[in-house]
Amino acid sequence: MINLAAGQCTACRGDEPALPDAEIEDLLFHVIGWQVLDVDGVKRLKRVFEFKNFMDAMAFTNKIAALAEEQEHHPLIISEWGRVCVQWWTHKIKGLHRNDFIMAAKTEEIFSSL
Amino acid sequence: MINLAAGQCTACRGDEPALPDAEIEDLLFHVIGWQVLDVDGVKRLKRVFEFKNFMDAMAFTNKIAALAEEQEHHPLIISEWGRVCVQWWTHKIKGLHRNDFIMAAKTEEIFSSL
Repeated sequence: MINLAAGQCTACRGDEPALPDAEIEDLLFHVIGWQVLDVDGVKRLKRVFEFKNFMDAMAFTNKIAALAEEQEHHPLIISEWGRVCVQWWTHKIKGLHRNDFIMAAKTEEIFSSL
Repeated sequence: MINLAAGQCTACRGDEPALPDAEIEDLLFHVIGWQVLDVDGVKRLKRVFEFKNFMDAMAFTNKIAALAEEQEHHPLIISEWGRVCVQWWTHKIKGLHRNDFIMAAKTEEIFSSL
């Protein structure tokens, strides 16, 4: 297993290509529980996390938001009672970058630490 | 205009029917900018709010979360860079209750106060 969670986001210039499917398949192996979602042809990494109430879901949402600001890479977060869905992708390249896998692994690490 | 924002959520027993379409049409007039969204046959009230960055979007998200806890009625909130989508509906009745319009009006009031 690569320790993706130990990585840091690198600035994505926007002229890099999105990861090819074969590389996505390989990296998915290192972020167990995450799925690839296709929204209008743009691939995203997605995982749903469950909580016992609304405020626990919001506390997790805020931890992910703080991580996002620190790494200067921002997800889409769907928060509701007992449930948070986190989605990572790279707008600039309209797809997945290695950064997104690093962020998924860091998200996972935060969830495990709760 | 009815001052829906001044209302309080009332406990929804679950044996009340969801609001009929005619009543929804009338109430929509009092929450300008909100739309009815149909998700798997369940109507929701939805509005997208725009912000100048991620943390402003998160600050608004947290204000709505605090309102939700206070009123014991919880929305779905989609937070991302510069954008928050708030959706209100009543799970128990699989549709819209007057409470949802009250919460939409209170959401609007919070946005206007920023």
